[in-house]
Amino acid sequence: MKLFPKRYHPPGTPPGTLVSVPFERPITCQWIECEQGELNLHDGLEVDKIYARIEAGAITWVRVQGRPSAEWMRRYGPCLKLHQLAQEDILNGGQRPKLEPYDGQLFLVLNVPREEDGWIRHQQLYLFRHQSLLVSFFEGDADPFASLIERLKESRARLKRLGLDYLLYALVDTAIDHSFPVLESLGEKIERLEEFLVEHPERQVLEQIYALKRELILLHRALWSHREVLGKLLRNEGDWFDEGILVYLRDCYDHAFQILGLLRSYREMTAGLLEIYLSGAQVRLNEAMRVLTVIATIFMPITFVVGVYGMNFRYMPELEWRYGYPAALVLCALIVLVMMAWFRRRGWF
Amino acid sequence: MKLFPKRYHPPGTPPGTLVSVPFERPITCQWIECEQGELNLHDGLEVDKIYARIEAGAITWVRVQGRPSAEWMRRYGPCLKLHQLAQEDILNGGQRPKLEPYDGQLFLVLNVPREEDGWIRHQQLYLFRHQSLLVSFFEGDADPFASLIERLKESRARLKRLGLDYLLYALVDTAIDHSFPVLESLGEKIERLEEFLVEHPERQVLEQIYALKRELILLHRALWSHREVLGKLLRNEGDWFDEGILVYLRDCYDHAFQILGLLRSYREMTAGLLEIYLSGAQVRLNEAMRVLTVIATIFMPITFVVGVYGMNFRYMPELEWRYGYPAALVLCALIVLVMMAWFRRRGWF
Amino acid sequence: MKLFPKRYHPPGTPPGTLVSVPFERPITCQWIECEQGELNLHDGLEVDKIYARIEAGAITWVRVQGRPSAEWMRRYGPCLKLHQLAQEDILNGGQRPKLEPYDGQLFLVLNVPREEDGWIRHQQLYLFRHQSLLVSFFEGDADPFASLIERLKESRARLKRLGLDYLLYALVDTAIDHSFPVLESLGEKIERLEEFLVEHPERQVLEQIYALKRELILLHRALWSHREVLGKLLRNEGDWFDEGILVYLRDCYDHAFQILGLLRSYREMTAGLLEIYLSGAQVRLNEAMRVLTVIATIFMPITFVVGVYGMNFRYMPELEWRYGYPAALVLCALIVLVMMAWFRRRGWF
Amino acid sequence: MKLFPKRYHPPGTPPGTLVSVPFERPITCQWIECEQGELNLHDGLEVDKIYARIEAGAITWVRVQGRPSAEWMRRYGPCLKLHQLAQEDILNGGQRPKLEPYDGQLFLVLNVPREEDGWIRHQQLYLFRHQSLLVSFFEGDADPFASLIERLKESRARLKRLGLDYLLYALVDTAIDHSFPVLESLGEKIERLEEFLVEHPERQVLEQIYALKRELILLHRALWSHREVLGKLLRNEGDWFDEGILVYLRDCYDHAFQILGLLRSYREMTAGLLEIYLSGAQVRLNEAMRVLTVIATIFMPITFVVGVYGMNFRYMPELEWRYGYPAALVLCALIVLVMMAWFRRRGWF
Amino acid sequence: MKLFPKRYHPPGTPPGTLVSVPFERPITCQWIECEQGELNLHDGLEVDKIYARIEAGAITWVRVQGRPSAEWMRRYGPCLKLHQLAQEDILNGGQRPKLEPYDGQLFLVLNVPREEDGWIRHQQLYLFRHQSLLVSFFEGDADPFASLIERLKESRARLKRLGLDYLLYALVDTAIDHSFPVLESLGEKIERLEEFLVEHPERQVLEQIYALKRELILLHRALWSHREVLGKLLRNEGDWFDEGILVYLRDCYDHAFQILGLLRSYREMTAGLLEIYLSGAQVRLNEAMRVLTVIATIFMPITFVVGVYGMNFRYMPELEWRYGYPAALVLCALIVLVMMAWFRRRGWF
Repeated sequence: MKLFPKRYHPPGTPPGTLVSVPFERPITCQWIECEQGELNLHDGLEVDKIYARIEAGAITWVRVQGRPSAEWMRRYGPCLKLHQLAQEDILNGGQRPKLEPYDGQLFLVLNVPREEDGWIRHQQLYLFRHQSLLVSFFEGDADPFASLIERLKESRARLKRLGLDYLLYALVDTAIDHSFPVLESLGEKIERLEEFLVEHPERQVLEQIYALKRELILLHRALWSHREVLGKLLRNEGDWFDEGILVYLRDCYDHAFQILGLLRSYREMTAGLLEIYLSGAQVRLNEAMRVLTVIATIFMPITFVVGVYGMNFRYMPELEWRYGYPAALVLCALIVLVMMAWFRRRGWF
Repeated sequence: MKLFPKRYHPPGTPPGTLVSVPFERPITCQWIECEQGELNLHDGLEVDKIYARIEAGAITWVRVQGRPSAEWMRRYGPCLKLHQLAQEDILNGGQRPKLEPYDGQLFLVLNVPREEDGWIRHQQLYLFRHQSLLVSFFEGDADPFASLIERLKESRARLKRLGLDYLLYALVDTAIDHSFPVLESLGEKIERLEEFLVEHPERQVLEQIYALKRELILLHRALWSHREVLGKLLRNEGDWFDEGILVYLRDCYDHAFQILGLLRSYREMTAGLLEIYLSGAQVRLNEAMRVLTVIATIFMPITFVVGVYGMNFRYMPELEWRYGYPAALVLCALIVLVMMAWFRRRGWF
Repeated sequence: MKLFPKRYHPPGTPPGTLVSVPFERPITCQWIECEQGELNLHDGLEVDKIYARIEAGAITWVRVQGRPSAEWMRRYGPCLKLHQLAQEDILNGGQRPKLEPYDGQLFLVLNVPREEDGWIRHQQLYLFRHQSLLVSFFEGDADPFASLIERLKESRARLKRLGLDYLLYALVDTAIDHSFPVLESLGEKIERLEEFLVEHPERQVLEQIYALKRELILLHRALWSHREVLGKLLRNEGDWFDEGILVYLRDCYDHAFQILGLLRSYREMTAGLLEIYLSGAQVRLNEAMRVLTVIATIFMPITFVVGVYGMNFRYMPELEWRYGYPAALVLCALIVLVMMAWFRRRGWF
Repeated sequence: MKLFPKRYHPPGTPPGTLVSVPFERPITCQWIECEQGELNLHDGLEVDKIYARIEAGAITWVRVQGRPSAEWMRRYGPCLKLHQLAQEDILNGGQRPKLEPYDGQLFLVLNVPREEDGWIRHQQLYLFRHQSLLVSFFEGDADPFASLIERLKESRARLKRLGLDYLLYALVDTAIDHSFPVLESLGEKIERLEEFLVEHPERQVLEQIYALKRELILLHRALWSHREVLGKLLRNEGDWFDEGILVYLRDCYDHAFQILGLLRSYREMTAGLLEIYLSGAQVRLNEAMRVLTVIATIFMPITFVVGVYGMNFRYMPELEWRYGYPAALVLCALIVLVMMAWFRRRGWF
Repeated sequence: MKLFPKRYHPPGTPPGTLVSVPFERPITCQWIECEQGELNLHDGLEVDKIYARIEAGAITWVRVQGRPSAEWMRRYGPCLKLHQLAQEDILNGGQRPKLEPYDGQLFLVLNVPREEDGWIRHQQLYLFRHQSLLVSFFEGDADPFASLIERLKESRARLKRLGLDYLLYALVDTAIDHSFPVLESLGEKIERLEEFLVEHPERQVLEQIYALKRELILLHRALWSHREVLGKLLRNEGDWFDEGILVYLRDCYDHAFQILGLLRSYREMTAGLLEIYLSGAQVRLNEAMRVLTVIATIFMPITFVVGVYGMNFRYMPELEWRYGYPAALVLCALIVLVMMAWFRRRGWF
């Protein structure tokens, strides 16, 4: 994941300018109409039919999967009554999660982290709500709402009672809850590193800890605005929702809060991992140093002694002694014993 | 204790879906009716009788020990008028402490840390209050309220006067106060480590410090929401309580606050322990280094000197001198003295 | 001072349960009546007389020195109209500084740090105010208010004008100001360590820094709630005081604030001391390492050279040369010069 | 960029004193009139004409590029109705971003970071708005609004509808968005350092990390007040704007927020880089130490052994043995094997 | 500068007790009357004349330079209507900057940092305002307001219009702005250290960094309350000022804010300096270690080889070989080459 996620126009570009992304991908559209709690799916995007159904009292959810091109946006954006600034945000991506009320409309940006091949990817969900119409854009390939529609059918009663509010809540809840599997797998990663650290304090661990830290920083940046967004939703300042949905949204807010609490303890834990790693390295350095010092301190003096008796002076009386050689060896042994006693007294081994 | 404590449904599951925990355990139920301050215990869970007694003006406390299965919940949850979301939270466990008012009802989640075999386990207490009915779920095996009932009998007067409010307070107070023994034993652990550190700065200490740190992080995560929950209770926004109970709840809030203050100083102390440990390691490294340097600096030059006179050149006048050998030894002694003077002047020993 | 200061009952004990402290000490009581600014001291605790004087319009201060037993409390507590929870707090000790208004009454807990034999002891002052009666409990042996009574006599005019409010203020002020001598002596300790560190960077310093840090953490924990308590007093929500006393209480609040500011800069300074100590150790390590490296790098090559000419091969032409020996010495000298030039160029000495 | 950016008068100088900057540069002026969404550019600064056009209902933007002299300010400042304190701020430079409402007028200071030759320069934009007149001062050489005028022409409709408000917004938006290219390039720098660190952990990296850190500290100082300024604008306390512009300003506020979020994660990342660098250094130190210890521990004993048999004692029976020489070599080999086995068991290689 | 700046009375002293400072210095008094914007200076302190002029409608500023004695204060304090607590604060010194409204009066304490001989001294300014009388006490020797009076004459118009408010503002502004030269010189010190660090990473630098850090901690403690004090002034809760002065006070507030922002970035920078210093030390340690390891690893094996052929065994066939000697040298050279290749492959040089 890139450190700088945003695509931006050159400063000075008028707001709401629409420019296509270079790496465009084909998008898929779907629209789901929902009347009296019954759901009907339609592929494609037939604006006329949608409005006809809305006229007839149905609520409608338009789903766009993939990031649309500027042309697409220019064509369909106004039909779907998307605000110009919202259109620009959707095309550019890399937004901060936010809640933007444009007169009578509600524009919501959420981050949906997903783990793919061991990497965490951050994809964005854009929700746009206008009277009886809900539009969602999700920029990733995988469909985070695949199982949602099936499940919505099961909670038909609530959907009937709470209408579009429940639909919106269901989408927000699904988006927020996508952080749980990611956090669970990060938690396992931390625990694995913890065990590994004690047994194999090798160098690669350092890079893994750093990679983990980086992921946590980016995840924190991506998610910490969720609490603010949900808090705003809960305050319901523009009377956007029926009171009945607030108990569900509070549950959702609670999840966002819990996710941030988990993230915080993960970050503290990771900082602790680095500390433990470095402390361990320091301890091993001390050990090596101690071994070296003991060896050098013992062998240097006795090597000096044997060096002395290797000198070639003509007049060295000891050399002629009968027991000179064993005496020199005994001298060496004495030096070794004295040194070892000294180290033992200092508690070095 | 796991880093990631929550059990969650796949994102997109409708709210309030009830799924059994894989590691179900048999639960035990009890109901205590209380009329005019007198307590009567009944085993089992006879819903009809309970409501009959409530009709008759008694207040009732239903205790469930252990984590119930989804079937149990589906059967008894609606009878006890538990909100769907509350039922889901109880089944899933690992919640953040919170206070949730569902219309006219009060749902409370608290963490109860307990020390078992030197490990801190976090178990959750769920309190649900609805008119004259109090329902408590405690997921652990041990019964934190074992002695409570005996004690409630002693404070009959207050129980009579304050009714269900007092009962709820007594449960909250007991749950909060369970942190004190845990904190006391952690405090002793820190003090033991402190002393140990000064005397035996060994390597295992590092792992103990880290384990302590981990426990403190998790304990902080589990407990820091208590203050918020109790603050909400005290504000009494929904007129949940009689004013008379607030003075007791304030005492309880004060305990929660004090617990967090203790936790904070423990965390600072633990960070200090790590610092002191590493500083000590650094100091010992310096010592070893100094010994090594002194030894090497003294013996290398004199070993060189004796090496010189061990050379086999034919024309080495010194070798023939009468006092060449003692002269060489004197030269070595001089070198040693000069070196030691130099080290002494630099304050190395 | 213990990390965990609080004595607590087993969780589940009803609030207000009174249990004696194991290490009871004899307590001394005094009561001071004050009418029209005149002070009269009486030893002992004659409840009837006290209330008679209060009836007569006098204001009364009951002083209890030492921690009372549960029996004492059970006997006198109700006479002095102490709230049950306040009685429990006084017996248990180790409270967080707090202000608790029980209907019409005011209960105040303050920490009074005192230095004894170089250690900081934290003792608590409990103030209880009820109409014209002020009760103070101070758990320590030494009397922090010894000089206060003499001084109160001097400010008779204010005492007459402001009555019990002034008395309460005088006690709070004295308690708060007891932190100043403690902070002054800590400040001197830090400055002494600072100087010491530069001159004698020895190992014991580390333990002293850590002990200082520990004391600051505990002092911070003991004092940081004072600001909150005094802030509450100043807001005077229950109309506890005459407006005239608030200007004095504001002065007191200011002192509490200043004390916390001092504590904060002490903690930063102590963290700085540790940093400087470790940095100094690192620097000395580098020096030792450099000496060792220079010595080893110079002597190892020349020791090798003399080793070569100490070999006993039959055919070694150099050995037969006339000037072989001086040539070998010159070679050694050259090596030394080259090495030293290389080290100089790298700026090693 | 200087740490201390502000030019200040000697303390005690009356407010609003105008003193020229020593390093004056020629300034260029332009004025743009705008009527019914049509833009006309004029070079120079003809005050009479400007006011004539304003009278006639046009809105006017006076652009000053470069830092004016005190004389210029004394001459034109009053004509343009700049507040005395605003004039002083413009001459002195190095202000904190701020929003200052002088009665009926609005004075805005923003920081515009720009990257030049790999260095980030902070230049200030001063915006002054008074009825139908907008005055902008930009102290740098390069023109950050070069492309703006062209683009304003394209959004004629909005300009016509929202008038001076839109013009002011466009300038603020352009100024804020100038941080994006700077942040993008810093993000790339961090990512490059990250990769570099793993492959070539050389010493220069340290200086680069520090330089990066310094830039981030200064950038943070320069930009963190933007959020406050934009928040104030949005609150629109003095009814400075038409409601219609607030949706655009909110977009702008969002960008300022996002910029600070990016900065924060950059700073955390940079701290992480330093940690990883130092950890790497520690790890390499350990490796070197280990190699040294292994080598020394193996060769010191065997060098001692061969030293023993190099002694010149007359009576050394081993020297006469037939297989003394191979036996000595075998002894050395044995020592080496034992040592290596010992190291292997300790997991040293 | 002392860590503990405050002089305090023994706890229990009644508030407002006046005690002389031991190190009294002669004080100088002046009074400036100001009528219709005209300023007249008088030396000394003629209380009667002052009040006569005030009666006549003039505004008056009494300046006291130096710290007065208790006698002085007892004599003049009441004449000048100073509150008892204010008198005590002035005598004791070392106050936290604060704003204290005593009924109808305003008491202001500000810190004025000044650089003297490379040290930062913190001196306090006490401002007391009562109707048409302004009293200032400045405890230092140097006169920070020397140039102020001259400059006040120049802004006669404003002085006439805004009266005492403007005078008070001018004093506050001068006091606040005295931090700018101090901060500028600290900024230069940091930049000098930065450059020095890269070129001469010597040991004294460490002490300089620590001294800088200490100064910044104390400066922060001295100045951070200014923001609060000026914020209170701006809120103008007691209608102390005419609205017209607030625009100037806001400028002043802005300076106080900017000063704290600078201080914060200085502290971060200083922390960065320490980091860079230690990192550099670590890097140099690694270098030394590497040199040592390379040297030892190369010379130990070959010294062993020549040691082998220096043994005196009778039966050593190699010694008799014609080319034994060159062969041994070649063996040494081979060892050196192998070792160097190994180091090169590991990237050690």
